[in-house]
This record gives sequence, structure tokens and C-alpha cells, in this order.
Amino acid sequence: MQISELGEFALIERLTADLHPQNTSTVKAVGDDCAVLQYPETQILTTTDMLMEGIHFDLVYTPLRHLGYKSAMVNFSDIYAMNGTPRQLLVSVAVSSRFAVEDLDEFYAGLRLACQRHGVDLVGGDTSASLTGLAVSITVIGEAAAQNVVYRSGAHDTDLICCSGNLGAAYMGLQLMEREKGIYLSQIKQAKTEEARRAIDFQPDFSGREYLLERFLKPEARRDIAEALQTAGIRPTAMIDISDGLSSELLHLCRQSGVGCRVFEERIPLDYQTAVAAEEFNFNVSTCALNGGEDYELLFTVPLTDHDRVAALEDVKIIGHITRPELGARLVTRDGNEFELQAQGWNAAKHDNTDGDNRP
Amino acid sequence: MQISELGEFALIERLTADLHPQNTSTVKAVGDDCAVLQYPETQILTTTDMLMEGIHFDLVYTPLRHLGYKSAMVNFSDIYAMNGTPRQLLVSVAVSSRFAVEDLDEFYAGLRLACQRHGVDLVGGDTSASLTGLAVSITVIGEAAAQNVVYRSGAHDTDLICCSGNLGAAYMGLQLMEREKGIYLSQIKQAKTEEARRAIDFQPDFSGREYLLERFLKPEARRDIAEALQTAGIRPTAMIDISDGLSSELLHLCRQSGVGCRVFEERIPLDYQTAVAAEEFNFNVSTCALNGGEDYELLFTVPLTDHDRVAALEDVKIIGHITRPELGARLVTRDGNEFELQAQGWNAAKHDNTDGDNRP
Repeated sequence: MQISELGEFALIERLTADLHPQNTSTVKAVGDDCAVLQYPETQILTTTDMLMEGIHFDLVYTPLRHLGYKSAMVNFSDIYAMNGTPRQLLVSVAVSSRFAVEDLDEFYAGLRLACQRHGVDLVGGDTSASLTGLAVSITVIGEAAAQNVVYRSGAHDTDLICCSGNLGAAYMGLQLMEREKGIYLSQIKQAKTEEARRAIDFQPDFSGREYLLERFLKPEARRDIAEALQTAGIRPTAMIDISDGLSSELLHLCRQSGVGCRVFEERIPLDYQTAVAAEEFNFNVSTCALNGGEDYELLFTVPLTDHDRVAALEDVKIIGHITRPELGARLVTRDGNEFELQAQGWNAAKHDNTDGDNRP
Repeated sequence: MQISELGEFALIERLTADLHPQNTSTVKAVGDDCAVLQYPETQILTTTDMLMEGIHFDLVYTPLRHLGYKSAMVNFSDIYAMNGTPRQLLVSVAVSSRFAVEDLDEFYAGLRLACQRHGVDLVGGDTSASLTGLAVSITVIGEAAAQNVVYRSGAHDTDLICCSGNLGAAYMGLQLMEREKGIYLSQIKQAKTEEARRAIDFQPDFSGREYLLERFLKPEARRDIAEALQTAGIRPTAMIDISDGLSSELLHLCRQSGVGCRVFEERIPLDYQTAVAAEEFNFNVSTCALNGGEDYELLFTVPLTDHDRVAALEDVKIIGHITRPELGARLVTRDGNEFELQAQGWNAAKHDNTDGDNRP
């Protein structure tokens, strides 16, 4: 159905039907000039991200449901990276006329699923037209007790550097999809008639790579890690989420904490499938992990005295330690060489800081 | 200077240099995964708007500085419409390669001026690339004591309906600019050579119309009215800002309050210049005021007992009263006829609810 057929108010009612606030902090959600929230005795965390078609996502291989899910998740990840709990979400979507009502339904289905899983209320937003393509802007509001907020700036000399999950998988997932897209487009190009084009029954070859695709298309913000840290009584001294590659995030932590670091290549967590795909593409798998980005894992530092407690955590690896600032931010390779870390996040080339940095 | 020349981090530093928080509620602004805010014992108001090039603004006649100013102002207006005070702003901007660093400087200059004038802190955001044109998304966070928040839903039978400022001026400003743009484009079209095109020295004829242009390009959120109400000890029963035309906003108030209304055409506040321009364009000036939109005035209701106090307010007019719901939402014309109000906001045709409604 065309969006213009349905009309603005019916569209909004359709998209926001059955929204029941899950948080007591949500006093009033959609329907007025503003949402109204109440947070007695806590600090509020806010983060926002904008996703533009053709820059941050490619609808050739990104289902809109996944886009909705991921748009929410990357913002939740920022809240967890401050050791907070996401509570409310505002969403703005601008769509061109090639999008149907059902497309928006799909996007919202993904958004709602993400909100539901993380106990977040959708409290407002804006739906509008666009001349060209899809634009999405998400703002998430979270909370934390003042003493629990973890900044990027608290790392100290000798602290252990820890990383959740594994890195580089989302980057390899993207490479796979870009390759299959290339094959598909070349088949389209070769087809001489419209009939031949329609006859193309393209089946991308993703068997056995589902994990990599999922890491890229449907990342999961690590609430479980934030909760495990609390349960274990560990308060990180600094924390950041890995959205723009391990190197880049380590450099942020070091610069903002005024420290150096040593991380060990052999300790960087990798999934088997990531290694296999990197081999196939003839990529250095460590480079993928260091610079790939979009992992949405948590990178954090803890005092040395927390070693045993953090070592006992599931799905968390100690990858190095913090040093004095004059020692620089160093990577120790498998063969014992040392290199200065460099920020080469995959977004760098695109003039794009949709990387979890709260900076305009 | 090209944005790619400057680089991402230098760009961000340039845009966020010298940002000093003005509010004690701003614990930490830009520079981490999230901004951190603290609001003890108050309720928080949030609103977000997305502005797309070609839909919400036309850069042919919208200076980027004005766009920045207006983007902030329309969100402040939503906070004032809830009887709150805006405190923090998050901004996301996506720009295509045709924009230079200086363009972003201009946009931010307008944004900063708006923030400065209204005591708001810019606490975060996102700057990214766009394949096509400019996209802006703003989120504003405000505060109010719980007992002071004014919703759209509190109007009662016999309440007086009040309106600040005057209506229809922004709409006429837009008409003037669209007309001059049309003349300019036709001159461009007629020019047969590139040389002839360059020789066109187009001077739009706006003399004496500055007020109308300013109402459209650089609207001012009515903090003064919100403050005057507080000073006078008047607490509106319902309030909304007029972004999509008086008719549309009256219908929102009536529907959400479960009431009807009678407003009088002769009492709708109009500026002399609006009337002159409407005459020139052969428009009915009341229709411009009822359906024009983008006025960013405040529409509110007060108990009948507040009549004398509200009548004494500067720049506020009583335009009608609330009735029982079965009487409908009615306009009484100058000649004594009555019509049912209809929502024909100028945005309606564009499938666009960037109209101050906090609805996705």
C-alpha cells in the first residue's frame, strides 16, 4: 500500500498501535508535543545516531526489519558502554515514495523487537517524506546511578584491558554480502532483455556463513556483559563499545584516560568462521578485528586486583593492559614485534562518525 | 574547504570547540558514548524532529545559518508547549559532498545562537555522510516540575482559548520566496549560454516584507509567553504549539481533551503585512492563518476565572472558548456563519508530520 493512500494519521496509528510503556520512568509516551519521563535520583544517558541509505546501509542486502533492529541496538550499545540501562527510544524516519506502508511496518517490527528484548519504551519521533532514499535517526535515553556511570576517561596504569565476544565477524559478513551483491549485479548487467533480467534466479551462497551475516545484519548490544560485570561486583574503570574497530576504540580510551596500552594480537578474540572467511578473501584476520568495526562488543578496563574475577567471566577475554602514556598505544604481534596502533576504522574513509561517539 | 580534506576528527573539534555547558543538569556533554544529565525531582521532556532537504527546507532561499537556528527553535517550541524549559540538544547532520566545511560552520552558528538565546546545551550528536542532500535530526530534552507539565488533554468546557502572536505570516513568507524562486529559475531557463546564466543579477523583491520572511526563516519559540504565564500565575489547562496551522492544532486539543470549541474568525490574530501579502496573492487571509502553519505560536486554554489575567497579557489574544464535545469544533466567521474546522495543515499533503507531534 502506498503511504499517501493510507494518510499520515492512519500511518502513525498503525505504527504506534499497542505501545505499552514498560518502564515506570515513562510518564507519557507518544501523543503530545513531547514525551514525559521521570528519573528521580539517577543520571540520564542520551545517545543519538543517524543512518543514511547508501552510506550506512544497503537495502539490496539489508532487510528493513533487520535495519530497524540494528538502528535501535547500536544506540542501546552506547548506553551499556556507559554502564547504564536503556529506557526510552525516539525514532525519526524519512522515506521516499518508493517505500510502501508494509516497508515501514517491517522497519518498526524490527525496532519493536529490539525495544522489547531490552525493555525499552518507544516514546516518540517523527515520520516524514524524503526526496531520495531512507534516513533514520534514533535517540535513546538511559539511566544509571551517578556512582555507576563509567566514562572512557577512567583507565589507569596497570589496569587490565578486556573485550567481550569476538571481533571482525561483522566486517567479514559485510564482505560476503558485498561479494554476492557484485555477482548479482553483474548477472543483471549481462542480461540483455528485461525478460532475461527477470529470469535471473540469484541464490547468494551464504551456507555456513550465517553467523557472520547475523553479526553484521543483526548485532546484539551486550547487556549480558554489563549485567555479568555487576553480578560479579566488577566496576570497570573505563568502557567503550566497539563500533569503529578495536584500534580506534583503544585509542579513544587511551587518549581520554591519558594513558598508553599494550594489547596482544594472539589474545584478540576471533570466531572460527571469521578466520575462515578472512583466509578466503586473503585478508589478515587480525587487521579485520582491529579495524573492521560494527562489532558492538564492549571494551573495558578493570583494576589488576579484579584479575581473577574478570578471568572467570564467560565470553570476556583479557587482551592486554594499560601503561603509562609515554609508552604509547602498542600492539604486540604474534611474532613478538610491536607496532603503534592506528585508527583505521572502516568509517574513517567515509567521513562518518556514526560510531557510537557522542559528538556532533 | 572540502570536509574530506579536514577529516572527521578535526571537523568535530571545529564544530564543538568552546562548548561550555550552561545548565547544572548537564553533567557531561560531548566526548563519550553518551551525554550524562541529571534531573533530580523533575520530569523530563523529550522531542525530536527530522528535516530533509527538498521536503522541509529549500536551500535556494534558506541560508544554512537560519536552518540551524530554526531546527533548534522548532524543538524548543515543543518543550515550551508542555510548559517546560529546554536544557539539552542533540544534533545529527548528514551532508553530501557538495557541502563544504564552511557550510557546516554556518549551520552550527545558527544552532549555537539558538541554544545560547534559550540557555540550552549542545550535548551530543552525529555527523555523517549522505549520498543526496542534507538531512538534519534534532532531539531536545527539557524539564518541568511534575505539577507544571501541561498536556494537550486538559481543556474543559467553558475554558478560554488563547493564542500568542499572530498567524499566517510564515506561510505568506514562504509564498513570497517561492514566487521569487520561480522568477529566478525562469530567468536561468531563458538564458541560452552559460555566460548569460552567470550574468543574471537576480534581486528578489522583498522590500517591506522582511517580517514575513523572518517569520518563515527564523521563527522564535515563545519562551516569553511561557514565562509571562508563570509570572501572571496562570497555569494553562491545555497547550500546544502551532506548527501545522491553527485548525489542525485546535482539532488536536479538542480530540485529546474530549471537548468541542468555538473560535471566532474576527479574533484570529493577524499582522498587517500578512493581510497585505494575502491580498496580493488573492488568498483568504483567514485561511492562511487557519491552515498555514509554521507559526510556532502557543495555543492554550485557561479556566474562565483567569479571564482578566489572561486578557492583561501582552501579545496574547482570546480567540474563542471550549464547548461540550457534541457541539464539535466550530469556526464562527465574520458574517456569523459557522463551519466545522478541518485539518488542512500545509504538511498534510506531503505525508509529513514534522509538526511538533511527538509521534513516530
